[in-house]
Amino acid sequence: MSEYTGYHGNSLEFLKANKISIGDSVKILADITYSGIVMPRYEHSDDKHIVLKLKSGYNIGLEIKNIENVEKKSSIEKKIETNEKIEKNDNLPNILLLSTGGTIASKIDYRTGAVTPVLTAEELNSSVPELGKIANIETKVLFSEYSENIMPEHWVKIAETVKEYSKSQYTGIIIAHGTDTMHYTSSYLSFALAGFPIPIALVGSQRSSDRASSDAALNLIGAVKFLTESKTNGIYIAMHQDENDETIACHIGTRVRKNHTSKRGAFQTIGNDPAFLIVNNKIQKNMKRDFFKVNEFAPKIKINQKVALVKYHPGYNPDSLRNLIDSGVKAIIFEGTGLGHIGENMYPVVKIANEKGIFMGMTSQCIDGMVRMTVYESGRDLLNLGIIPLENMIPEIALVKAMWVTGNTEKFDEIKENMLKEIALEFST
Amino acid sequence: MSEYTGYHGNSLEFLKANKISIGDSVKILADITYSGIVMPRYEHSDDKHIVLKLKSGYNIGLEIKNIENVEKKSSIEKKIETNEKIEKNDNLPNILLLSTGGTIASKIDYRTGAVTPVLTAEELNSSVPELGKIANIETKVLFSEYSENIMPEHWVKIAETVKEYSKSQYTGIIIAHGTDTMHYTSSYLSFALAGFPIPIALVGSQRSSDRASSDAALNLIGAVKFLTESKTNGIYIAMHQDENDETIACHIGTRVRKNHTSKRGAFQTIGNDPAFLIVNNKIQKNMKRDFFKVNEFAPKIKINQKVALVKYHPGYNPDSLRNLIDSGVKAIIFEGTGLGHIGENMYPVVKIANEKGIFMGMTSQCIDGMVRMTVYESGRDLLNLGIIPLENMIPEIALVKAMWVTGNTEKFDEIKENMLKEIALEFST
Repeated sequence: MSEYTGYHGNSLEFLKANKISIGDSVKILADITYSGIVMPRYEHSDDKHIVLKLKSGYNIGLEIKNIENVEKKSSIEKKIETNEKIEKNDNLPNILLLSTGGTIASKIDYRTGAVTPVLTAEELNSSVPELGKIANIETKVLFSEYSENIMPEHWVKIAETVKEYSKSQYTGIIIAHGTDTMHYTSSYLSFALAGFPIPIALVGSQRSSDRASSDAALNLIGAVKFLTESKTNGIYIAMHQDENDETIACHIGTRVRKNHTSKRGAFQTIGNDPAFLIVNNKIQKNMKRDFFKVNEFAPKIKINQKVALVKYHPGYNPDSLRNLIDSGVKAIIFEGTGLGHIGENMYPVVKIANEKGIFMGMTSQCIDGMVRMTVYESGRDLLNLGIIPLENMIPEIALVKAMWVTGNTEKFDEIKENMLKEIALEFST
Repeated sequence: MSEYTGYHGNSLEFLKANKISIGDSVKILADITYSGIVMPRYEHSDDKHIVLKLKSGYNIGLEIKNIENVEKKSSIEKKIETNEKIEKNDNLPNILLLSTGGTIASKIDYRTGAVTPVLTAEELNSSVPELGKIANIETKVLFSEYSENIMPEHWVKIAETVKEYSKSQYTGIIIAHGTDTMHYTSSYLSFALAGFPIPIALVGSQRSSDRASSDAALNLIGAVKFLTESKTNGIYIAMHQDENDETIACHIGTRVRKNHTSKRGAFQTIGNDPAFLIVNNKIQKNMKRDFFKVNEFAPKIKINQKVALVKYHPGYNPDSLRNLIDSGVKAIIFEGTGLGHIGENMYPVVKIANEKGIFMGMTSQCIDGMVRMTVYESGRDLLNLGIIPLENMIPEIALVKAMWVTGNTEKFDEIKENMLKEIALEFST
């Protein structure tokens, strides 16, 4: 990365004309005055804007043609000197931040030019200074993966780390995580760490911190507010509620889904309002139940990956199901249609799975609502073929639960019993 | 079915005490006076209600303890005599109703006791008398399948029938269809019948007509209103907008999804408002574009079922993708995470698919929003491996389009070109 990475055409000319490089502290008069640090841009960016990271940690894109004046306050060298070790404040609660990667942890370091896929306490403090006023944040880098590359083995590593902090000085734990598969991870942790005494918030960002309008800082601030003030436990996802910056939503880790590819408010609690909202920095509670059905913390970390999710559709080839059976899966989660149906052409292969003692659970590709397999003849046929209706469990969460349940027992009756026993609000609405 | 099917305990006693059987016309005073026909009940019904079909075609469940008076107006024999052949009214538009099965067509005939899986013009007229006032409805039974059993072969049969009516006296066509896979069928018809000159509405019901609060009648009335007043063409799904009876929503057949297992307003247009609303019987237009990109009707009916939908998730076994390749699929639609990602562990098998000339398209399991594969390194890797981003196409609709495209050409370049060429608003928001 150079001192102008991502800038080209008009924006590059503008930087050079004003003797500004990435990393410099500047004061820019446009409609109002903005003070901040010049950030690098993405490779496909336009040449009409420059991006500033404001003191709030929030990034803003300023259109060059509206800029009336630029004042360079300090150059990049000056910035480095001020980047000191943070003092711990004994009056503030302590939060542990575990970094796993993802957009939120993909800071482009404008000092070294390298993409640093980590969040250190120092970096956090300099980019989101509000955090230091509400909590002492200690950070630990677990690994650095975009979330599409997070595998069940990574879930286990997170759980192995977290379980060591069940008796600690921390008020809560943040897990910085890519958003793509965040709800898979949150549901695994909800099952594996049942009874964990302090709250855990998975936090990501939909826009990386070098882009205008990154949501990273506000999601982190909201998560810390939640962890220090909610007086609850459980595993949550804390992200923007919508496009506005007023509200951070905390979703129950087993009832949440990423429902938009790019919006800041991409995550939604299915069938209910989010458990907590942080509205203009004030916490609101909507949740009416305890997160865990158990009081004692008894971690069960193991997982079995020989579980398949089968999304039925017209034209689905039953041979695909047959191949899954032959591959030795221990459980199959159907994402059926409507109230929980699959076509009659699937029955012969379903019968084979049943005879082999493979657990089969039914969810709905409608995502919202209960499966009900007693309403229609086809549902009753499937019940007779051994398929177990999984109420309103979200298909992806049912898949994760099946991996976790079959990781901890191989007995069919215990698998069935545990799949239907609520652990962490996975059946709640 | 007996004269008391589904009634037991209190409700059966009540019927016997008042000498009423299923099919009788009665007048009941509860909070207000209800006139209607006593309907059978479901096998798992409670014993606290009796269900009346009102003259509007709407069913209501009356709690026995609130009933003050019952008056039998005519017995079942009388009812049969009045069920005459309907006269055609030359001043009204003509609508063709094709019945394919599903809840909407699953009338329990309380005269014969049989489940009659068809909608005849006579039955329609007696159960939804409003229809006769706004259009002449002619009916044709194509087949009788619950929609989970509707296969691509059934889609072809519907299209083969519909295409014969491109030059006819009909103002529009209703296809009565089960709701579970209705959006798969509507999208196939949108592609296969591109340019079809008159509007088509798929109509279903979430509650069968023998249940209190069936939505069948109102959905049908709304669809007829839409077909006769919209002055448009294209393929739509006409269903309740929400739990209220005020609004029927008409969704574009390629932009719609069943998003709730049981609600009356289960269908939603993804990323936009429905194309048309029928609010209190008045039509409102939201749609701003033409449905078809072509003006000439040139049906392409063929379909190829060797297409797979692959929903990626942590723990997805790349061997499953390998099995699909070996089974000879012509196209694979990925339901990736977020902006269109799958894990790095999939790359070797994706490479094989690419080398074999299999078309691979990317959609998102977020359902809403665009895939964008240039933002992150992993997206760019997948582009280099030959995966084509399918913008904001809904995964299920992309699957159907791939079946249709590969049914009509085997050449990779033509498959790619046609997958990306908008036919029927499938990329619209």
